[in-house]
Amino acid sequence: MARFFHKSSEKAGQTPGTAVYVGAAKHETVTVERYEFDEVDLECAEAVPLGSVQAPRDSQKTLWINVDGVHEVDLVQALGTIFELHPLAIEDIAHTGQRPKVEDYGNHALLVLRMLRWNEKDDQIDDEQVSLAIGPSWVLSFQERKGDVFNPIRDRLKSSRGRIRKMGADYLLYALVDAIVDHYFVILETLGDRIETLGEQMAEDPNRKDLVSIRHLKRELLFMRKSVWPLREVLSSLQRDGAVSIHEETVPYFRDVYDHTIQIIDTVETFRDMVSGLMDLYLSSISNRMNEVMKVLTIIATIFIPLTFVAGLYGMNFAYIPELQWRYGYFGALGLMGVIACGMLIYFRRRKWL
Amino acid sequence: MARFFHKSSEKAGQTPGTAVYVGAAKHETVTVERYEFDEVDLECAEAVPLGSVQAPRDSQKTLWINVDGVHEVDLVQALGTIFELHPLAIEDIAHTGQRPKVEDYGNHALLVLRMLRWNEKDDQIDDEQVSLAIGPSWVLSFQERKGDVFNPIRDRLKSSRGRIRKMGADYLLYALVDAIVDHYFVILETLGDRIETLGEQMAEDPNRKDLVSIRHLKRELLFMRKSVWPLREVLSSLQRDGAVSIHEETVPYFRDVYDHTIQIIDTVETFRDMVSGLMDLYLSSISNRMNEVMKVLTIIATIFIPLTFVAGLYGMNFAYIPELQWRYGYFGALGLMGVIACGMLIYFRRRKWL
Amino acid sequence: MARFFHKSSEKAGQTPGTAVYVGAAKHETVTVERYEFDEVDLECAEAVPLGSVQAPRDSQKTLWINVDGVHEVDLVQALGTIFELHPLAIEDIAHTGQRPKVEDYGNHALLVLRMLRWNEKDDQIDDEQVSLAIGPSWVLSFQERKGDVFNPIRDRLKSSRGRIRKMGADYLLYALVDAIVDHYFVILETLGDRIETLGEQMAEDPNRKDLVSIRHLKRELLFMRKSVWPLREVLSSLQRDGAVSIHEETVPYFRDVYDHTIQIIDTVETFRDMVSGLMDLYLSSISNRMNEVMKVLTIIATIFIPLTFVAGLYGMNFAYIPELQWRYGYFGALGLMGVIACGMLIYFRRRKWL
Amino acid sequence: MARFFHKSSEKAGQTPGTAVYVGAAKHETVTVERYEFDEVDLECAEAVPLGSVQAPRDSQKTLWINVDGVHEVDLVQALGTIFELHPLAIEDIAHTGQRPKVEDYGNHALLVLRMLRWNEKDDQIDDEQVSLAIGPSWVLSFQERKGDVFNPIRDRLKSSRGRIRKMGADYLLYALVDAIVDHYFVILETLGDRIETLGEQMAEDPNRKDLVSIRHLKRELLFMRKSVWPLREVLSSLQRDGAVSIHEETVPYFRDVYDHTIQIIDTVETFRDMVSGLMDLYLSSISNRMNEVMKVLTIIATIFIPLTFVAGLYGMNFAYIPELQWRYGYFGALGLMGVIACGMLIYFRRRKWL
Amino acid sequence: MARFFHKSSEKAGQTPGTAVYVGAAKHETVTVERYEFDEVDLECAEAVPLGSVQAPRDSQKTLWINVDGVHEVDLVQALGTIFELHPLAIEDIAHTGQRPKVEDYGNHALLVLRMLRWNEKDDQIDDEQVSLAIGPSWVLSFQERKGDVFNPIRDRLKSSRGRIRKMGADYLLYALVDAIVDHYFVILETLGDRIETLGEQMAEDPNRKDLVSIRHLKRELLFMRKSVWPLREVLSSLQRDGAVSIHEETVPYFRDVYDHTIQIIDTVETFRDMVSGLMDLYLSSISNRMNEVMKVLTIIATIFIPLTFVAGLYGMNFAYIPELQWRYGYFGALGLMGVIACGMLIYFRRRKWL
Repeated sequence: MARFFHKSSEKAGQTPGTAVYVGAAKHETVTVERYEFDEVDLECAEAVPLGSVQAPRDSQKTLWINVDGVHEVDLVQALGTIFELHPLAIEDIAHTGQRPKVEDYGNHALLVLRMLRWNEKDDQIDDEQVSLAIGPSWVLSFQERKGDVFNPIRDRLKSSRGRIRKMGADYLLYALVDAIVDHYFVILETLGDRIETLGEQMAEDPNRKDLVSIRHLKRELLFMRKSVWPLREVLSSLQRDGAVSIHEETVPYFRDVYDHTIQIIDTVETFRDMVSGLMDLYLSSISNRMNEVMKVLTIIATIFIPLTFVAGLYGMNFAYIPELQWRYGYFGALGLMGVIACGMLIYFRRRKWL
Repeated sequence: MARFFHKSSEKAGQTPGTAVYVGAAKHETVTVERYEFDEVDLECAEAVPLGSVQAPRDSQKTLWINVDGVHEVDLVQALGTIFELHPLAIEDIAHTGQRPKVEDYGNHALLVLRMLRWNEKDDQIDDEQVSLAIGPSWVLSFQERKGDVFNPIRDRLKSSRGRIRKMGADYLLYALVDAIVDHYFVILETLGDRIETLGEQMAEDPNRKDLVSIRHLKRELLFMRKSVWPLREVLSSLQRDGAVSIHEETVPYFRDVYDHTIQIIDTVETFRDMVSGLMDLYLSSISNRMNEVMKVLTIIATIFIPLTFVAGLYGMNFAYIPELQWRYGYFGALGLMGVIACGMLIYFRRRKWL
Repeated sequence: MARFFHKSSEKAGQTPGTAVYVGAAKHETVTVERYEFDEVDLECAEAVPLGSVQAPRDSQKTLWINVDGVHEVDLVQALGTIFELHPLAIEDIAHTGQRPKVEDYGNHALLVLRMLRWNEKDDQIDDEQVSLAIGPSWVLSFQERKGDVFNPIRDRLKSSRGRIRKMGADYLLYALVDAIVDHYFVILETLGDRIETLGEQMAEDPNRKDLVSIRHLKRELLFMRKSVWPLREVLSSLQRDGAVSIHEETVPYFRDVYDHTIQIIDTVETFRDMVSGLMDLYLSSISNRMNEVMKVLTIIATIFIPLTFVAGLYGMNFAYIPELQWRYGYFGALGLMGVIACGMLIYFRRRKWL
Repeated sequence: MARFFHKSSEKAGQTPGTAVYVGAAKHETVTVERYEFDEVDLECAEAVPLGSVQAPRDSQKTLWINVDGVHEVDLVQALGTIFELHPLAIEDIAHTGQRPKVEDYGNHALLVLRMLRWNEKDDQIDDEQVSLAIGPSWVLSFQERKGDVFNPIRDRLKSSRGRIRKMGADYLLYALVDAIVDHYFVILETLGDRIETLGEQMAEDPNRKDLVSIRHLKRELLFMRKSVWPLREVLSSLQRDGAVSIHEETVPYFRDVYDHTIQIIDTVETFRDMVSGLMDLYLSSISNRMNEVMKVLTIIATIFIPLTFVAGLYGMNFAYIPELQWRYGYFGALGLMGVIACGMLIYFRRRKWL
Repeated sequence: MARFFHKSSEKAGQTPGTAVYVGAAKHETVTVERYEFDEVDLECAEAVPLGSVQAPRDSQKTLWINVDGVHEVDLVQALGTIFELHPLAIEDIAHTGQRPKVEDYGNHALLVLRMLRWNEKDDQIDDEQVSLAIGPSWVLSFQERKGDVFNPIRDRLKSSRGRIRKMGADYLLYALVDAIVDHYFVILETLGDRIETLGEQMAEDPNRKDLVSIRHLKRELLFMRKSVWPLREVLSSLQRDGAVSIHEETVPYFRDVYDHTIQIIDTVETFRDMVSGLMDLYLSSISNRMNEVMKVLTIIATIFIPLTFVAGLYGMNFAYIPELQWRYGYFGALGLMGVIACGMLIYFRRRKWL
């Protein structure tokens, strides 16, 4: 449940714009990374003390500040003050558990996304809120935990190759969003493999445990859908409104991420269809097996019922039962039973019940 | 039923704009609260006689009048006259049971919301209509009963801190709406806990009572949905139409409540999915158990049928049945029965029916 | 069926704009009522001969002509000619069985509504087409039968109080529409009571008759929905297009009726959900009862099967069965049977089958 | 299947704009009808040779050319050349099996409709593509077969009465569309009667044949829906785009056909609901009957099982069974059996299983 | 699974705009075809070395370059450089498994489609991504494999007849799209035949294998739908946005393909309905047969149970059973049994259980 709905009742009634952290209590240290670069230079520091963070003076350079951990609300607040973030933006950053959304506050904007990772231990999708604040020449990224999908971006920044060093804050924003969305495909692949494996195994021998697996897959797909679905609207409004000061040459890149998102949504829906199909397969194979059991058993019972009647007939103690005195009476009775049994078998087979 | 549909047949055919109270008859006294404030001063009175209520002369100050109880229709009418409310607005305030809506009457507007609270005694959601009338420098709030979710706002007003004293009537309106919507999260949390508890308990031992709980949860979710769903449209049109004289700096706040509303709707839908899942779980576990019973019992019956037939066979009274005279006939018959029984058990097990 | 689909095949191929009456043949006399009024004067006549009906010369006054009965097509045609109605408007008035709609013909407009009433005798909703033609200073209303929901309007006109005498033809139109829509709430209340009563009764003792009641409620709700659903679009387009020469001060009133319509549609959908819930309740309680019967009966049968086998065993006629000669053999056999029966009962109870 | 999907694979890869006839091979002669008229004159010819067909020189007159049969592709091509139809229009006319659509080619437009008729012989709906090409002063209509629903239009043209002679090509187009749509009501009536009859008969005695009838009705409704549904969009775009040079005074007439189309779609959906209801009725009555059979039979079996056990008990051959020697033992046993049977019957009845 | 979701996790984190091939590894040689033509001349070469491919100098002529095989990423990259394709376009071409889409990059555009072919061997639909890049006077087409549906276009180009040589790059684009869409009808025909055959066979003798066929058809229809559905939006935005420098005279042609696409989607939905109907038919016929088996068997059992009881009765060993001594006791018992059996048969038949 916790994954589907972040408790926020303690926030009810608070002054709007108050930063309150609502995730699980945490004791990790918060770390701050800082990259300042243009096409030529790159300054990069991996554990910056808060005091030394400043809004960029030189707007020619692009500044990226990445914060791992938003449970130290004061730090978020301090950064918010330095970069003049809107109070509601600060609240949304600290208050994890937001739906993906984009909010334009005039001179800066806030993009909230869900970063998904497959948790091998619990065999489920873990999610984390990533908040991206973007100003004219800077991007702030806030994550809940250490560990992310941004390493390729760090590498590209450092190796000094390509567009990312030239194209400013909006392209950096795109790169971060793209990294998160690209990782959704990895999750999809894991889920796809599960569905395929389960399908193959159930074709051979469906059993009760499969029901648990199906319900598990269903829940993970529901969870994934909840994280990806609103992204469609977010990215579409990013392109449409021309907000967030996105340059014209960056627009096709955002359109590309948008297309990926639609493809992911499509695939999630297809997977949901397939899992429903597995459920139907399970139910029909269970009911089929049960029907077969009942049918064969009922047929056995039915064949013996007339035979048992015949046996009962000649077990009666009437003083005068002519057949009983006949020398071959017993064999005659056995023969009669055989005829009845064969007759019923033929009848059943002819009506295709066997 | 009463919660889902407020009787209003007695109103049919009345002159439009007639204030008619349609809730349960009530004998509570109606109380009127009054707050008049600007950044510097705050006048506040908690039980104001009607005579002393006046429309604000000094439009520099913001006036908030809160009425607990709309069953004294004359009072509502009197207030309506003082603040020059549209007759239809007065009718809507008195005629509780309205869908959430916003109505712009040119120089003032009316916002109707449902305030939800969890009723521990009846184990269900209670709702109450809150009507918010807003003019250039005043807000009137009408509730059906004493007791509300506005205390944090009263505290913030009195403690003189923050935006609420500076930003005028539209921000006050926002604060009231936000308080109501924030409280929805508290209800969601209660419902979420119920669903989780029920799910865990059913995984262990599903029984008939769970069906009642499921139906109960379903009804509460339906009720909640009915109250929250129209709010989406209301808040979206508030932003869009620029009606109700909302200043530009208040718009992001309303957008924030709008986002919360969408998150609530999303969660309600997820919860409905989960409750449907519980229903499926119940049905499948009941049918599963029944199938198991039938299967085992049928198998027992089927094994004994051939045995009983053999017993019947040697209970026949034919004069000449060779086996009967054989000294070990009885043990032979017992042996035959044992072989048949084992054979059938092996057959059943091989076909995985056992 | 007749209520759901008015036969109109005889009209196929007719010249468009031909007035053809398609309801049941009728012999009632058609009556014409006439109200002409302004704020000061009111002329009212209750059985006006056709000859004396004239288009208003004095456009300062508002004219309302109400016709009970459209089966005398010539009368409709004559009125149409006097007020210069469009041929298609005349066709729609006579050809009852129209979907609710609004049609703007430039200098006048036609509003078609369904007036619903609960028919106690047949225990179903009766409907009737009400066509409202509106011109600059007149309203014509056509009904299929005597008896309507307009009496409060007549009273208000005569008692000379309020807006209806001052605000012209568009407000009169609103008042007529509002009277019809308000009456829908009466129908809803009747249906709501039925659903509630049925639900309570089924919780105690569901039986086959309930199925009939459920199907009956379903049909009435379908019927109601068919009448109300298109009204939403009609009223929304009335506001939007500014057609039908509606004055600005009348617009909020139409918006109010629109809100009522949405509330009715919402309630109808909620009722449909509830009736579906009743159906599920019925099905699950029936299948539950059947399962219980089958289970208990099967258990009884299963307990006796091994006992009967034991009895059969000692009914065999082998020459040498040692137990038979034992003095306490009979009591031993009875004891064995008792042990078997108890064992099975304990086993069943432990697996919770009993 | 053929009715649902016209084979067109032979067309794949052809030059676009090639007229290829794809219906069943036909040997009927193609006939061409020609009407040229204004308010005063009417020239009409019923079997015109192709050579004499010419585009209208005198644009004061309206020209209607009706072609029965499009399998002679050359003729279609020739007419297309005379009236300068767009190659794609010619292709659509010949290539029957199009969805209803409207296509504007600048100086002329093409309207494709499905004309439905009830085929008594095969007890199903027959359809035929009617393509209507409209230019400034002419209308060409192409049908697949002889026989149509246009006779009332021919009569009205010849009898010289009314609007059709005065209002030009667009009104003629409207008249043709209206005739086709009006005939849909005839089909609906036939279907409605079938549904009603079937419902009444099933209430009395549901049997397997009803399933066939239900499936048949379902298919016909699906077929009808497929033909009517796209018409809504077609007629709505005709009004909206102001295309096809429709005069302002003809617009209300097209709006009227549009309303009819919506009413037909509504009724088709209602009928589909009703047929689904019949299916549910069938399924529930079948399962109900089966359950009753099983219940009564199981009860009979269950009552006799303990009785048979008692009989078996006293059929045992133990040397010492005290009851056997008792003089009234037999009658005592019979009495015991009677008590058991009555006890079970009372128990069953008390639990309402009987 | 592979057909429904192309693995792309290896791409996650790559620099956007990197061409990575994600299909199955391939060793086919890539071939490049080249057509350059205007109304008068045609140069055509079927295996062009990469070095000789150049962007068109003479923009009067139309250039078509068709590449069979995109797994040699370098070649795609090289072509992209020559024609100045956008990096994202190059990535989409190489990264097969895209949803159909259109992307406008200012001076050129990219259209991605799925080309479907029926694979007789695996009895399923094969798909292949076809990427069409269009510039002012050139079209590049990229396919995954040799073999396509473009031969009629090649023929038309060479035979020098018709519009395709005159109307420039946008008409060529249309021709390619039309060829792909036309081929969908061939697939539909195959699927339609399958559904019809299966339906006929199941009406006679439904069996377990049909379930497999139904699931197979369902999957193929799902697959087809996934490929065709997005095409609707693509073609509609092509017309709407006026992008891709489409001349006005080509617009009706694209509208025609759009209509075909809608017809295909419609047919796919109809087929899905029909397959669902087959599934229902299967389930109802299976459950029907099972019910019949159970009913007849239960009736047989039930008739014999009382008979067996009577036999057991007279098998009791009481010392005094008067009937036993009666000379015709045996025949009397047989008669009694006959009466019971006949009585039950009559009762069953009267209640229509037989």
